[in-house]
Amino acid sequence: MSIIYLTRRIQFCAAHRLHNPALSEEENIEIFGKCNNFNGHGHNYTLAVTLRGKADPKTGMLINLTDLDDILRKHIHDKCDHYHFNKDIPEFDGIIPTIENILIVFWNILSEHLAPGMLYEIMLHENDNNYGIYRGETS
Amino acid sequence: MSIIYLTRRIQFCAAHRLHNPALSEEENIEIFGKCNNFNGHGHNYTLAVTLRGKADPKTGMLINLTDLDDILRKHIHDKCDHYHFNKDIPEFDGIIPTIENILIVFWNILSEHLAPGMLYEIMLHENDNNYGIYRGETS
Amino acid sequence: MSIIYLTRRIQFCAAHRLHNPALSEEENIEIFGKCNNFNGHGHNYTLAVTLRGKADPKTGMLINLTDLDDILRKHIHDKCDHYHFNKDIPEFDGIIPTIENILIVFWNILSEHLAPGMLYEIMLHENDNNYGIYRGETS
Amino acid sequence: MSIIYLTRRIQFCAAHRLHNPALSEEENIEIFGKCNNFNGHGHNYTLAVTLRGKADPKTGMLINLTDLDDILRKHIHDKCDHYHFNKDIPEFDGIIPTIENILIVFWNILSEHLAPGMLYEIMLHENDNNYGIYRGETS
Amino acid sequence: MSIIYLTRRIQFCAAHRLHNPALSEEENIEIFGKCNNFNGHGHNYTLAVTLRGKADPKTGMLINLTDLDDILRKHIHDKCDHYHFNKDIPEFDGIIPTIENILIVFWNILSEHLAPGMLYEIMLHENDNNYGIYRGETS
Amino acid sequence: MSIIYLTRRIQFCAAHRLHNPALSEEENIEIFGKCNNFNGHGHNYTLAVTLRGKADPKTGMLINLTDLDDILRKHIHDKCDHYHFNKDIPEFDGIIPTIENILIVFWNILSEHLAPGMLYEIMLHENDNNYGIYRGETS
Repeated sequence: MSIIYLTRRIQFCAAHRLHNPALSEEENIEIFGKCNNFNGHGHNYTLAVTLRGKADPKTGMLINLTDLDDILRKHIHDKCDHYHFNKDIPEFDGIIPTIENILIVFWNILSEHLAPGMLYEIMLHENDNNYGIYRGETS
Repeated sequence: MSIIYLTRRIQFCAAHRLHNPALSEEENIEIFGKCNNFNGHGHNYTLAVTLRGKADPKTGMLINLTDLDDILRKHIHDKCDHYHFNKDIPEFDGIIPTIENILIVFWNILSEHLAPGMLYEIMLHENDNNYGIYRGETS
Repeated sequence: MSIIYLTRRIQFCAAHRLHNPALSEEENIEIFGKCNNFNGHGHNYTLAVTLRGKADPKTGMLINLTDLDDILRKHIHDKCDHYHFNKDIPEFDGIIPTIENILIVFWNILSEHLAPGMLYEIMLHENDNNYGIYRGETS
Repeated sequence: MSIIYLTRRIQFCAAHRLHNPALSEEENIEIFGKCNNFNGHGHNYTLAVTLRGKADPKTGMLINLTDLDDILRKHIHDKCDHYHFNKDIPEFDGIIPTIENILIVFWNILSEHLAPGMLYEIMLHENDNNYGIYRGETS
Repeated sequence: MSIIYLTRRIQFCAAHRLHNPALSEEENIEIFGKCNNFNGHGHNYTLAVTLRGKADPKTGMLINLTDLDDILRKHIHDKCDHYHFNKDIPEFDGIIPTIENILIVFWNILSEHLAPGMLYEIMLHENDNNYGIYRGETS
Repeated sequence: MSIIYLTRRIQFCAAHRLHNPALSEEENIEIFGKCNNFNGHGHNYTLAVTLRGKADPKTGMLINLTDLDDILRKHIHDKCDHYHFNKDIPEFDGIIPTIENILIVFWNILSEHLAPGMLYEIMLHENDNNYGIYRGETS
């Protein structure tokens, strides 16, 4: 049986601010620069979610992409689209919404809604030039 | 002499909120929907600025794209990038930052920094699917 | 009052075949080449619909892009997405679904659902390299 | 000697229908939804084929991309472009043309025309939001 | 009869140098900056050629895009792809290959190979952020 | 601690020629085809540089993308942008500037300016259809 990687991509628009309240204003500005702007800024984010596994011979599918899209819409898009990461999304209380941290939060959310072992990789683009990947690896 | 249209495109990341303080909360939500979210949301905006005119035979250029880029960087990018339209950019005091209104404000800013008659068209993308154009036409 | 051009873009996936039943098989193949394949082929089409007019001072909008999207979804996307132009879409009975003809059919559909004079231009991409524009001009 | 991954991407336009004749009409519609439309629909597919190996010191190349393109053009593009997967391409007799199954068929075709061990990964996009990868892994 | 605008886009890779031999080295560097580099630099150019006219009722086409592609391939792509504008392409003898001048040269070439009045607009991208348009207008 | 992959992408425009002086003219043309053109050609290159590691809990960042961008700008962009690989960039003396060889040279440059073990992968696009990846693997 062949092992396939299947990806669904979604987009959402959100605001965020990079700020660590445990640091001084000067430190925040030094570390985060213009991303520390008090009122935040925003992005058209894209999230690509990749599953890994075998296709069901009856359907020729690893997962029905419509079902995967429903999961992403309900648990990521509708939670984040047209919101402010720092102020509107409870999962980010106390978490600086960098690409790195958003990936980890999203991974944990998605893991609860997919069959064990299916989630292989998530990729988040903040814009065309900045993006990150998380595969659930720890050390 | 040939008439050429020459375009330079820039990108910037900003937050905004669609809200008219003269309307009730109910009306704002009915009109602007999720774009009315109190804490705002954001986009990777792209602005394409098109000039119209004749190339200088000495340079083969209508305008030096480096000079046009400097103008766009100073008067648009640095004023908007990593800011919140409603809270951080004085030109938007009392103005709802829709695509339509941003275009008009940007046109007025740019007109002051380009030779008379050169500015032909500006195009603003909020994302891949929503964009507008302004050519300075009025009625 | 400023005149703005505002665009909403949608995508849909469809099959089509270029074939004129009034011509012989040889003529069809000579004219349409591989686009004449009996079983059809397909594209991810994108349609960009541009309106022209003045923004309402109360909303800063020419049209609510959500409303425009609803019109495009109901009258274009849901009629064409995952269908075969020649076999499934009644508006194309007896019409060869070239870019040119699809534009004219779509223009006529959309004109019925938008305020008179608002529809300015529609642009249809068959793929990255082939696209057409119709502005309702006739001669 | 450095190990490089080199990729050539091609595009082709094709129609397909997701349908399993061993299932009832009701089951087909429940599983495949609008992808089950009797007359099919279509996509602009992109296929990215990645080889892995060492560059030849004489040429600085792992493979001449022109040669790789010739292989892809002859064995994939010309077999699929402007055709219907289910009705026109013999390799898909009895195979539901999902992303997953197309990847496996393409892998088997390409393996016959490349030096053993060179083929590393193939990636197929149905559209911007749906894509899959196959690396020849089995379990 | 409806008036349609139909576009075919091609890509080619070329080198160029912006330099006016009638000027001093200092003036060339002041005007053209890094584009004046003695050995040149290069781009993946895209050219989009738009025709305007009525579709033939027999074919539903303004022009067969395959025929238009043949013209672009023969008279633009094969003349420019993998060449140096200043050193390899006779049409640019004595002409500074700016976007503006390339557009005018290409317009003149294409006008000879298309029916009178069909050529409406050509658009040349040097990269994602710099592009120009020429419509044959003069003053 | 989660292991994240973080990427920054840059673009630069350069000319190059594929040519091995140890081979005859006939062999060069046979191997490199139009890429062997004496005066060179060019591309808009994109380089995506991926680091791998753990985010600093104080900043939520693996690396500050501004710092990574500074490194890429100084050591890659400013060395290559608007230059000719074969004639202007000393690191390519005696090296055929194929995708494969550019990747190896860039990897060696970047390794000197990043913390040991951070550099995970670099990806170079010559254009939309040709690209390569290097992960520092050898055999």
